[in-house]
Amino acid sequence: MSDLAISPAASALDIRLAARAGRLTGHTSGLAAEHVQANLAILPAAVADDFRRFCELNPQACPLLAVTAPGETAVPALGADLDLLHDVPRYRVWHDGELVDEPTDIARWWRDDLVTFVIGCSFSFEHALLAEGIPLRHVEQGRNVAMYRSAIPTRVAGPFSGPTVVSMRPLRAADAIRAVQITSRLPQVHGAPLHLGDPALIGIRDLARPDYGDPVEVRADELPVFWACGVTPQAAIANARLPFCITHAPGHMLVTDLFNRELAGH
Amino acid sequence: MSDLAISPAASALDIRLAARAGRLTGHTSGLAAEHVQANLAILPAAVADDFRRFCELNPQACPLLAVTAPGETAVPALGADLDLLHDVPRYRVWHDGELVDEPTDIARWWRDDLVTFVIGCSFSFEHALLAEGIPLRHVEQGRNVAMYRSAIPTRVAGPFSGPTVVSMRPLRAADAIRAVQITSRLPQVHGAPLHLGDPALIGIRDLARPDYGDPVEVRADELPVFWACGVTPQAAIANARLPFCITHAPGHMLVTDLFNRELAGH
Repeated sequence: MSDLAISPAASALDIRLAARAGRLTGHTSGLAAEHVQANLAILPAAVADDFRRFCELNPQACPLLAVTAPGETAVPALGADLDLLHDVPRYRVWHDGELVDEPTDIARWWRDDLVTFVIGCSFSFEHALLAEGIPLRHVEQGRNVAMYRSAIPTRVAGPFSGPTVVSMRPLRAADAIRAVQITSRLPQVHGAPLHLGDPALIGIRDLARPDYGDPVEVRADELPVFWACGVTPQAAIANARLPFCITHAPGHMLVTDLFNRELAGH
Repeated sequence: MSDLAISPAASALDIRLAARAGRLTGHTSGLAAEHVQANLAILPAAVADDFRRFCELNPQACPLLAVTAPGETAVPALGADLDLLHDVPRYRVWHDGELVDEPTDIARWWRDDLVTFVIGCSFSFEHALLAEGIPLRHVEQGRNVAMYRSAIPTRVAGPFSGPTVVSMRPLRAADAIRAVQITSRLPQVHGAPLHLGDPALIGIRDLARPDYGDPVEVRADELPVFWACGVTPQAAIANARLPFCITHAPGHMLVTDLFNRELAGH
C-alpha cells in the first residue's frame, strides 16, 4: 500500500498506524487536517533541561505541546496509542550536528536517556486560516512555505542559540489583520506573527531567496507576514552540535489526537 | 472657572456636571481617561430607522453604544445622571447640511421627535493602546489624529452613504500586531484596524494631507495603521443634507460612566 492510499479522511490514529507499519513514509501535509501535527526533538537527558529552557524562553518559535520523561516512548496526552519510535513517517538521526540516518523508525537508535520534545507546528494555524477563507499561496501552489533566518535573535539557554527562523505568507492587509486575530488565539502553534511589512527590518535581504522551503510571489497589493517557525529549534540543535539527537524529517510530522480547534485560547 | 481647572482625575459625572454648568466648553481629550467617551448624532425620528440601519451595516465606523427613544434626554445605561441637552461641552446644529450654531447646550433646539445615537470613539482604544505601552505619536505631540476619506465605501441605508473615514496611527510592525490584538477586543469603539501598509490601496494619495485633523510623520521603520473613524457617520449625515440635526462638536465628546475596560470582549 503506497502513501497515496492514505485517505485525507483518515483519523490521526490511522495515520500513525500507517507510519508504524511502514505504509506511510511521505509528508503528512494535508493528512488528518483537523488534527494537530507536531515537530519532534529527541535529546539526551543531559541537555534536556537546557533545551526545555530554550523552548520556554522562545515560546513563539518553540511552543511546547509535551515533554516526556527520559526513555518514555508514549505520550498519552497526545494520543491513546502513540509510539514515538515508529509513528513518525521519517526521522533524522544526527551525530555531532551531522545527519547520519533518515530511518522510518528509530527502534535501533533508542536509548533510555532520551527525552522527547513535542513542539507545535504551523499546519494547525494554516488550517485555521484556510477555514476562515484566507488564501495561502504556497498551499494553492503545492509548495513548501518560504522560511528565512531572521535577525531576531533567540534567547540563549546552555548550548542552544541562533536566529529566529520565520515563515512568510503573503497576504492582503485585511487578511493580514484577520490572520493576526486568528493566530493570536493559537499560542501553542506559534501564535501571532512576529513581523509584517518591510523584510529588511528583520534582516531579510531578499524574499525571493528563502533559507528553507520554496520562494513565493508577494504581489503589489500584499504584505509579507512573518511567523516564528518550528525550524528555529532545529537550527538551535544544529548550532549546538550535540553528540547525538533525533528529529523528525521536515514535513514528516507526528500526527496527534488533539484537534486544532482545541488549541484556541481566548 | 476655566476649562483648565478640570482635573484629569475628575470623574465622568464631574465632567458632565462641568459641561452642564458651562464651566467646561473645550475638548474632552484626556479627561476622565478611563471612561468611555462617545460621538453623538441627534436626528429626527423620521430618518432614525435609516440611520440606525446605516450604523448596523457599518459597525466598525459607527459602533452603537446606545440609541434613545424619540424625545428622551437621559441614557441611564451610560450614566445615572446624564442630560443629553447640556452634558456635551459643545454641540453643532445643522440645517440642510449647513452649520447654523455651535451652542454649549441644545435646550432651545430640542424637539420631542429627536432620537439620539451614542457612537463609540477612538479615545477608548487609544487609552487601551497607551496602557499597553504602545506609543501614539499624535498624542505625544498634542495633535489631533490624522483622518482621511478612504475609497472604502460605506453600505448605504436610505439617505445615508459616503466614504469610510479612517484615522491613521504610525506604528512599528510589532506594535501594529499588538494593536490589532488589543483593538480586536474593543468592537464597540471601532475594533480592529481596516487596513495597514500602502495607503494607496484604500485610495489615500498623500498621508501628509489628511482630510481632517493634523498630519503626523510616518518613519521608515513604521507602517501606517488605519482604523474606521467616528467621523464616518458625521460625513454620512452631511451627505444626507438633513433639514435638521445635531451632533457634538469634534473633540467635544459625551463622557459616559462606562469604563473602557468594560468594553473588552473575548
